[in-house]
Amino acid sequence: MTARTCLSIVLAAGLGTRMKSDMPKVLHQIGGLPMVGHVLKALEEAGSERVSVITGPDMPNLESLVHELMPTAHCHVQAERLGTAHATLAAKSDLQDAADDVVVIFGDTPLVTSGTISKVRGQLAEGADLVVLGFETPEPLGYGRLLIDDGRLVAIREERDASEEERKTTFCNSGIMGFSGAHALALMESVGNKNAKNEFYLTDAVEIANQRGLKVVAVAGSEVETQGINTRAQLASCEEDFQNRMRLAALENGCTLLAPHTVFFSHDTILETGVTVEQNVVFAPGVKVASGATIRAFSHLEGADVGSGSVVGPYARLRPGAVLGAKTKVGNFVEVKNATFGEGAKANHLSYIGDATIGSGSNIGAGTITCNYDGYLKHRTEIGEGCFVGSNSTLVAPVQLNAGAFVSAGSVITDDVPGDAMAFGRSRQIVKEGKAAQLRSRLQSEKDAKSR
Amino acid sequence: MTARTCLSIVLAAGLGTRMKSDMPKVLHQIGGLPMVGHVLKALEEAGSERVSVITGPDMPNLESLVHELMPTAHCHVQAERLGTAHATLAAKSDLQDAADDVVVIFGDTPLVTSGTISKVRGQLAEGADLVVLGFETPEPLGYGRLLIDDGRLVAIREERDASEEERKTTFCNSGIMGFSGAHALALMESVGNKNAKNEFYLTDAVEIANQRGLKVVAVAGSEVETQGINTRAQLASCEEDFQNRMRLAALENGCTLLAPHTVFFSHDTILETGVTVEQNVVFAPGVKVASGATIRAFSHLEGADVGSGSVVGPYARLRPGAVLGAKTKVGNFVEVKNATFGEGAKANHLSYIGDATIGSGSNIGAGTITCNYDGYLKHRTEIGEGCFVGSNSTLVAPVQLNAGAFVSAGSVITDDVPGDAMAFGRSRQIVKEGKAAQLRSRLQSEKDAKSR
Amino acid sequence: MTARTCLSIVLAAGLGTRMKSDMPKVLHQIGGLPMVGHVLKALEEAGSERVSVITGPDMPNLESLVHELMPTAHCHVQAERLGTAHATLAAKSDLQDAADDVVVIFGDTPLVTSGTISKVRGQLAEGADLVVLGFETPEPLGYGRLLIDDGRLVAIREERDASEEERKTTFCNSGIMGFSGAHALALMESVGNKNAKNEFYLTDAVEIANQRGLKVVAVAGSEVETQGINTRAQLASCEEDFQNRMRLAALENGCTLLAPHTVFFSHDTILETGVTVEQNVVFAPGVKVASGATIRAFSHLEGADVGSGSVVGPYARLRPGAVLGAKTKVGNFVEVKNATFGEGAKANHLSYIGDATIGSGSNIGAGTITCNYDGYLKHRTEIGEGCFVGSNSTLVAPVQLNAGAFVSAGSVITDDVPGDAMAFGRSRQIVKEGKAAQLRSRLQSEKDAKSR
Repeated sequence: MTARTCLSIVLAAGLGTRMKSDMPKVLHQIGGLPMVGHVLKALEEAGSERVSVITGPDMPNLESLVHELMPTAHCHVQAERLGTAHATLAAKSDLQDAADDVVVIFGDTPLVTSGTISKVRGQLAEGADLVVLGFETPEPLGYGRLLIDDGRLVAIREERDASEEERKTTFCNSGIMGFSGAHALALMESVGNKNAKNEFYLTDAVEIANQRGLKVVAVAGSEVETQGINTRAQLASCEEDFQNRMRLAALENGCTLLAPHTVFFSHDTILETGVTVEQNVVFAPGVKVASGATIRAFSHLEGADVGSGSVVGPYARLRPGAVLGAKTKVGNFVEVKNATFGEGAKANHLSYIGDATIGSGSNIGAGTITCNYDGYLKHRTEIGEGCFVGSNSTLVAPVQLNAGAFVSAGSVITDDVPGDAMAFGRSRQIVKEGKAAQLRSRLQSEKDAKSR
Repeated sequence: MTARTCLSIVLAAGLGTRMKSDMPKVLHQIGGLPMVGHVLKALEEAGSERVSVITGPDMPNLESLVHELMPTAHCHVQAERLGTAHATLAAKSDLQDAADDVVVIFGDTPLVTSGTISKVRGQLAEGADLVVLGFETPEPLGYGRLLIDDGRLVAIREERDASEEERKTTFCNSGIMGFSGAHALALMESVGNKNAKNEFYLTDAVEIANQRGLKVVAVAGSEVETQGINTRAQLASCEEDFQNRMRLAALENGCTLLAPHTVFFSHDTILETGVTVEQNVVFAPGVKVASGATIRAFSHLEGADVGSGSVVGPYARLRPGAVLGAKTKVGNFVEVKNATFGEGAKANHLSYIGDATIGSGSNIGAGTITCNYDGYLKHRTEIGEGCFVGSNSTLVAPVQLNAGAFVSAGSVITDDVPGDAMAFGRSRQIVKEGKAAQLRSRLQSEKDAKSR
Repeated sequence: MTARTCLSIVLAAGLGTRMKSDMPKVLHQIGGLPMVGHVLKALEEAGSERVSVITGPDMPNLESLVHELMPTAHCHVQAERLGTAHATLAAKSDLQDAADDVVVIFGDTPLVTSGTISKVRGQLAEGADLVVLGFETPEPLGYGRLLIDDGRLVAIREERDASEEERKTTFCNSGIMGFSGAHALALMESVGNKNAKNEFYLTDAVEIANQRGLKVVAVAGSEVETQGINTRAQLASCEEDFQNRMRLAALENGCTLLAPHTVFFSHDTILETGVTVEQNVVFAPGVKVASGATIRAFSHLEGADVGSGSVVGPYARLRPGAVLGAKTKVGNFVEVKNATFGEGAKANHLSYIGDATIGSGSNIGAGTITCNYDGYLKHRTEIGEGCFVGSNSTLVAPVQLNAGAFVSAGSVITDDVPGDAMAFGRSRQIVKEGKAAQLRSRLQSEKDAKSR
């Protein structure tokens, strides 16, 4: 990036009524992050050190999200919805504090990349006063067309005003614009509202700037990056585009995805090189998987850290706070929450491990449950190194198994177990000869009686 | 709809030998409902109050399905398969009792909509004597072409008889037809069988009607709606089209589907506005989900009712008779069958809840199993309000936990528990110091001995 | 096939650096089988009784795989990578022992079929001296074009050397070639390395053969069959093509796949006619499913044999050695490993059945765990016919339940149970009146104290 300063204005006031949702439109998520968060991320990567977000009235959740994701950003409320130029002027106080570049972008274009924003800024750096980001599309119907003459953007022609010839143009307006700081505020304030809807359209700045002899140009971005989201179907389609981007990046980074289109990533998923992911895996936010680990089919991970060479799944669920060391195994129908596994620790089958520490090399038998919750508070289960917990055991927290402890199968463990000790918490077996045959005969009679 | 009366004849006699199945073709399912059921549903919605279904010989399952889905429908057996006109005449007794409109449709076109059927009837209402439903396709090869002249359908030209020019026509015959009741039976009876296969083709009625100076027209439907199913690959492709229709409807209704193409609906799935569905969810028949509920990833629901604000899954299985009140939670690796959850009740982990009632606010610990089956009969588990069932408990039905009861973890409960009482059904823990180290040494020796 | 003898040379020396993997490229898998394995399989089916595989230096895993899959194959190391003709000459000792046909093929084209190889050999049988396999593609950019004149292959023209006119050719070189045994070695040895990279290109043999007046022809294969794999994205795309081929074959064989694109096969999966597979099922290697069985949604099978009329899943995991007899049921959240189920045996819910035999008609209750592992050795659980194992039972192997035995729910079974006997291994229930209310009040105080 150049050392030029940049103010970006993110238009995020839309209600998104076509979403049929109470939530402001830009809070709908892509890859587990609200749309506007993706835009803020791209702006940050593109080096915009100042950001103003234009919200609608009564959007406290949006404001707090913006401040959480980007504490330096300013939020401004657009009280009435009178068009895009009117919206940008809600940030007038920020515009008065001039930056070299002013970028106007939408909060509902989550796929926009920093590279594309940098392209717009690049034109400003090379002397343009006004830059419009366009895109090529085979189906331009309905879009404003960018009319180029001798390298300059002469006009943005709306569908309804376009001539037969102009409609053949396939280079269309994305709405994303860049202004030189010297002219931004003046151009925005010059936009009028003499049109059918009496709204102030920022695109009119093109005509005004040309009239003033300023340098107006267009640059080409991709259609997929600049599409706005207005319906849940578009949201779903955008999510699919986002997922494909993440999948391709994982493949290019040397991961094996057996069936990429069945793997779902979050915006912050980190897979190191050499990770294998089988079919039907969901990475909710906050997951990191180290090199050489395998995530088997039908697994669901969230807020989890998987050590190198570990094998997770199939059908494993890692919840927030699951931290698996190297070479661990978490197998089928096992849920791990807020629990640390030491190197080589295993819980292979049908277990719930919550609020626990499992020492290196310990083996948790099938059907083991940590009872971490008494209905009021959560308690921890601490298991030392080299322990063996027999199948179907119940560990009532708070409880501690010291190193080398052995819990016999089917035990209920309520007290701490010393190191290298065996603990039993089960009854002796009693056998009643012939009783099963008697029981069957009785149950059969009862069944017959009922069906009579 | 108009107040005109309508008789619809559904051709469903086909064996579907290319399906490689013992089942009559129209019994293969789309969205959990046999194909012919979709057609009956569309006819009902289009206001056809009389329906005749033409079956093949020995199709008792088809007849009983038709009577179950539409008790007023008549079934007629086409003893020999001698063509479509021959098939419709199997319903001659119904045709003799004249209706204003007669619609002939196929039992293997499950995607046909009532709107399309209404289009055909609309032409009859406007005075047409014979209406053929056509469709536009970029690949007409193999289809009969609809030759239109001056707004009239002049002929249906089969591929083999078509001229070079006629083959360029992309408007093709779907086979679905409408007759004015005044002419239907006469036209059908006039069809001859002077052709290569000696069969009676209903499409010949077009030529006959034109010869008689009747008004013959075509209307356009969509290709996807009118495609018949002849192979399992076509069945699978039709299922995908059906699923996409259901997915789009859910999105348009204001539901969030994180990955629509991984959600599978049944014909009768009801999702209220504002439901969220994560990835990889299967809705088998009979499911209703109330507003604000979330169905998390990898869940499978059938015959279940999910209350508003509830969270189901990930990896939850709701089976028939699962009725979840508002704000309930059914979590991972939990199976619920024929059980009612009161408001706010929870079963979060690794449980089987069958033939049970769980009172409001009760919490079922991880690994809890209701033992509802003794090998002969099913018994109920009744859990009152505000109960706490400790993890890994076994509830042997019939059994009752009264309000406020507490079951300690790892208990086997065979007798009723009074309100606000605690129940224990487990052994005291015994610890043998140093025994684990001894055991390891013995087991290691055994292992060494075996591997020698 | 003709009775002609055939030597096939498989070029498999590539490192596949673009895969970003330590593994030789051809060891990456498609459908659970390394790519080169697919090629060997196709060659075997095409009747090539002699196969030479050219490996790179230091690829012991590749060599052992080849010998495992095809013990008669010869492996030769290409010490330096100097082009395809240089590679084939690594097998000079095999070439000297002449065959009627010599086929040169790539180890990274796993979708090639025996039919396509037979096409190449068919041309040799009809008198061609050199055959090049081509493919038609709408996007020929970058491929060598096959220039045909009067039925003969005149030249392979690389993109950079092609004229404007030649570039319009859409018939391209796949690289797969056939040589008559009489000329193969001589042609390969005649190839020079006077080119930019100083490599020996086998495609140059076309020009040489034409100069010598030999008969050189091209045959057309399909693009999808002949594409080589160079990146993980291409691997994933090839896997999808492979899966689609398997899915279509299953449908054509009379299986019902509710959502074919969510079913994942291995190279050796066997589904008999009339099998039903629901959504999201993974068949890892070694699975056979008999007629009339249903594999329900979200199931994962590997090394398993499912008997006719059985129902597996949803959410069932069958691991290697699972052998299910006819009419068995393995239900949700059940894992079966190295275990045999007799006819009609059932394990419907949340169980781990490992190293076990379950007799005909026996019923394994929900939550049952076989404790097969003591940390050192695996032990077996033997369950006779007609047994009933109550829910949440723990079976500590080695242990035997004889025919008709009944285990009460929640028992820990450590000793054998005689036939028709009942076994109990659980504590009597104790109830403490009013204690739950006291406990709640105490826990609430503790919680309040903590939050203060």
